[in-house]
Amino acid sequence: MSLGLHILLDVAGAPFATLDDAVLVERVLVDAVRSMGAKVLGIHIHRLSPQGVSGVVVISESHLTIHTWPERGEAAVDLFTCGDAGRARTAVRALATALGAERTRIEEKQRGVDGSR
Amino acid sequence: MSLGLHILLDVAGAPFATLDDAVLVERVLVDAVRSMGAKVLGIHIHRLSPQGVSGVVVISESHLTIHTWPERGEAAVDLFTCGDAGRARTAVRALATALGAERTRIEEKQRGVDGSR
Repeated sequence: MSLGLHILLDVAGAPFATLDDAVLVERVLVDAVRSMGAKVLGIHIHRLSPQGVSGVVVISESHLTIHTWPERGEAAVDLFTCGDAGRARTAVRALATALGAERTRIEEKQRGVDGSR
Repeated sequence: MSLGLHILLDVAGAPFATLDDAVLVERVLVDAVRSMGAKVLGIHIHRLSPQGVSGVVVISESHLTIHTWPERGEAAVDLFTCGDAGRARTAVRALATALGAERTRIEEKQRGVDGSR
């Protein structure tokens, strides 16, 4: 039995300004969590120097993380959830759109030593 | 070119008491980050009810997360790093040992839309 669903989202072709805006990135993460009907337990957003944002949101038994490379137009997002898979997929797609992604790569994994990947 | 290395570690057969000890889990995460020569930017550890721990550590352009299921003896750990791959692998193996894992499943991914997985 799986421990949870892990969705790996990689984004490319997103605007520099969007990926370098820590306030916007935080709002996008929180919106994603809320759209899943989940509750934010904790959040850390860091703007890196000279550019880029790293952020993590802790949800109960779950998390959502992001790292952005504005100079490349790229970002890596991870959503780990024990909640509804359909809502999680919808939230991840909306998140990619909110970041202005031109291209995405989405992969799903069922976690756990005995889970199928 | 890859955005970074993502190591997915799933653990099984670990003691209930270890996986349910938020203080111990926090120490294990911080030890792993330090062993990589990285700096903790932020940390959130939550003990869940009735059992289990969720934790995230933000490192510069990187993160380390854990979710534990003491009643199953299982945990899911993710390390995303832009640092040295060898030190990251060593840190992840040490982390599994510190949790008392009997069995592990480790997978590596190069992140990014154009990265090879």
